[in-house]
Amino acid sequence: MKIITILLPLFFTITLFSQSDKEMFKKIFNTTMSSSSSYELLDYLSNEIGGRLSGSLNAERAVKWGQEELSKSGFDKVWLQKLMVPKWVRGPKEFALIETQPGVTFNVDACALGGSVATPSVGIKANVIEVKSFKELEELGKEKVDGKIVFFNRPMRSDLISTFQAYGEAVNQRTNGAAEAVKYGAIGVIVRSMSLRLDDNPHTGTMSYGNLPNSRKIPAAAISTNAAEKLSDLLVINPKLKFLLRQQCKQYKDVVSHNVIAEIKGSEYPDEIILIGGHLDSWDLGDGSHDDGAGIVQSMDILNIFNKMDYVPKRTIRIVLFMNEENGTRGAKKYSEVAKKNNLNHIFALESDAGGFTPRGFSFTSNTENFNMIQSWKKLFEPYLIHSFLLGGSGADIAPLENGNNVLAGLRPDSQRYFDYHHASIDTFDAINKRELELGAFAMTSLVYLFDKYGIVK
Amino acid sequence: MKIITILLPLFFTITLFSQSDKEMFKKIFNTTMSSSSSYELLDYLSNEIGGRLSGSLNAERAVKWGQEELSKSGFDKVWLQKLMVPKWVRGPKEFALIETQPGVTFNVDACALGGSVATPSVGIKANVIEVKSFKELEELGKEKVDGKIVFFNRPMRSDLISTFQAYGEAVNQRTNGAAEAVKYGAIGVIVRSMSLRLDDNPHTGTMSYGNLPNSRKIPAAAISTNAAEKLSDLLVINPKLKFLLRQQCKQYKDVVSHNVIAEIKGSEYPDEIILIGGHLDSWDLGDGSHDDGAGIVQSMDILNIFNKMDYVPKRTIRIVLFMNEENGTRGAKKYSEVAKKNNLNHIFALESDAGGFTPRGFSFTSNTENFNMIQSWKKLFEPYLIHSFLLGGSGADIAPLENGNNVLAGLRPDSQRYFDYHHASIDTFDAINKRELELGAFAMTSLVYLFDKYGIVK
Repeated sequence: MKIITILLPLFFTITLFSQSDKEMFKKIFNTTMSSSSSYELLDYLSNEIGGRLSGSLNAERAVKWGQEELSKSGFDKVWLQKLMVPKWVRGPKEFALIETQPGVTFNVDACALGGSVATPSVGIKANVIEVKSFKELEELGKEKVDGKIVFFNRPMRSDLISTFQAYGEAVNQRTNGAAEAVKYGAIGVIVRSMSLRLDDNPHTGTMSYGNLPNSRKIPAAAISTNAAEKLSDLLVINPKLKFLLRQQCKQYKDVVSHNVIAEIKGSEYPDEIILIGGHLDSWDLGDGSHDDGAGIVQSMDILNIFNKMDYVPKRTIRIVLFMNEENGTRGAKKYSEVAKKNNLNHIFALESDAGGFTPRGFSFTSNTENFNMIQSWKKLFEPYLIHSFLLGGSGADIAPLENGNNVLAGLRPDSQRYFDYHHASIDTFDAINKRELELGAFAMTSLVYLFDKYGIVK
Repeated sequence: MKIITILLPLFFTITLFSQSDKEMFKKIFNTTMSSSSSYELLDYLSNEIGGRLSGSLNAERAVKWGQEELSKSGFDKVWLQKLMVPKWVRGPKEFALIETQPGVTFNVDACALGGSVATPSVGIKANVIEVKSFKELEELGKEKVDGKIVFFNRPMRSDLISTFQAYGEAVNQRTNGAAEAVKYGAIGVIVRSMSLRLDDNPHTGTMSYGNLPNSRKIPAAAISTNAAEKLSDLLVINPKLKFLLRQQCKQYKDVVSHNVIAEIKGSEYPDEIILIGGHLDSWDLGDGSHDDGAGIVQSMDILNIFNKMDYVPKRTIRIVLFMNEENGTRGAKKYSEVAKKNNLNHIFALESDAGGFTPRGFSFTSNTENFNMIQSWKKLFEPYLIHSFLLGGSGADIAPLENGNNVLAGLRPDSQRYFDYHHASIDTFDAINKRELELGAFAMTSLVYLFDKYGIVK
């Protein structure tokens, strides 16, 4: 049997771009790939400043650096927006081990989760109960859990093409594991790191105790995926093994920090704001090159690229380096609060906070009319292998700006490696590829150009 | 001015796939991402065998390994196809330096190009003339070139989205630089490494003297991109500087080697062959994980994946591990020669030889009828972010099988990082991401499934 295919695609499409847009894309591409400053900026942020958790001295150095660098780029003004941020400090390196019998121990790569309380100075040592879900925890109940350390070991699913979806489906173990486990008398929580790779790197990240009083808070740590596999194997052989965890992290009172904002007024529509941003804070283990140094420098690069092309924006362009995305999103809250109070009209906001890898597309929060317009632009991006324009989601820092009329977008780089680095000590500058980073800046600048030229459907 | 977009895409398309194909894709995806053997196979090939230049002991170990591994996978037969290959040996590490004045020197990271002759044992030392093209070389002529070392320093273009195109436009400096330079009396050639990244790694690769007699062959080496930048800068300050190159590489007589071939007869159309392959040889500097260990293990994985799904191919599936792609393509020549002699009907051949990165699509050599069919399949791939189906090119090892009726294809992974590693000492297993490698195996298996099910238009 032979099958003959007949293909008759008929398009009646009014596309919303012109030949000059195609040429403009080529110009943006050439300018970015030949004289982008993203890589150089990131080199400084990552290697000279480094990890910059909210409330840390490094975070303040990053604020100062961001303000200074943006001041060189020809914005009309650059300013700091004051806000209060949580201050959590990891303290000395955590210590953890598995004791299968007295004197027989295996060291474990562990790190406190952000926001966790410390253990007593000698640590906690207890039997371990392994669970894959909160439901399983509930079924075990107080009888099986009381006095133990709960080990959350549900891996991220490998059979999803979007690693962000896999992360989303697994991360409640980290964010709410302690609050759930304490209900059944657990004295501590260890969580399999949120990574798809088997290695020795523990991945930190935010967690919350909800409304628990201080007296009921139990320490929570991540262990590496290799350690999780090993612990799980050993528990089969010896369910009575003990786990020792020692960590000296501490939550301090909130401290002052800042968003960094730069603005250039639009030449034709100064009241229509286009915002581009990422978050300036990072976790403390690595230097935050992918999360979210990449998004910061790509955002900062956009006006440089426009300037090099002598492109004068018609609408007002704002670059915002948000503070405290990782453990509070206080910067996002402050920014949107002030924007609402001042009736600012953000027609479009774009966030890059998914790593510095090859851009595959964007996701959008948009009404149908605007999304139709956006989809008609896709053809401009396809020659640069940017194919994926999806509805659904933008970024944590810009999401509060949604008003039903405007458009929000998130850059979507290739996600396959992202969670290898995310929140771990290996999220460092050497994991960044210059071209991939620059291609992200190109994609962002091109999308900003289109919104600057065409605005949104009202 | 507001522009309203109207989008009325009307499709009258007869698509050549069914709901069951969608489900089959999901099944192939899940099977691959949960139990692919690609990563484990590559771990062995890269870390236990390593670099495997044609004619080397390692290449023979790789042949033996390939034969043994394929014999475990349920093929009807696995055999070796004998052929003669060139044997070129690098010898001790090359030595190179720039001497700006007697006693003032800078070491240079260099490596002999594959096929180059050695220098005298004390090396060659001469003034340097930098050129960007053969045209420039010709314009300089014998007067300016005679007795010097020619330095080819045209960088790969950064303003091309396809790094393979950038490579293609620059690589003649490496392949033919020596043969061109000798016309004007050059005594040696150094070439800027074929890489888009500025770093210290020299990249080897094949070169040819054409029909030059042995007495006229001059040594040719690559220097790292950083060294090329430095040399170029120093030449501006001091055009009289000298360059010293010492290398002890040697071309031996051809030796025996093998293609490794595995076959399972089709249950319905045994005379229609689907070939999947990559090349088993690699350069000697790294362990050849991306070039082309990745393609080898992805090809070897396909029947494993089918077996795990209890999928029985309707057409004959052949896996071919080609020998000597890097410096002679003798394996490809031998294979196609024997195939023609035996009137074998290769309806489809697929090669993976562009690295183990996230797959972006395929390129095809195909007539219009078949390409229409292929394009109708694109929708099956898009949920897995495989968007790019292009006409033009497949792979060096399968290209000789083209007959105007059949379809040839090459896997096209993300190419942005590829030339950072290509032919350099850093093309090693740690540069491979397990998921990205497996996604390539998934993409290949899925395409093979479709050709196995639907065949080609005749």
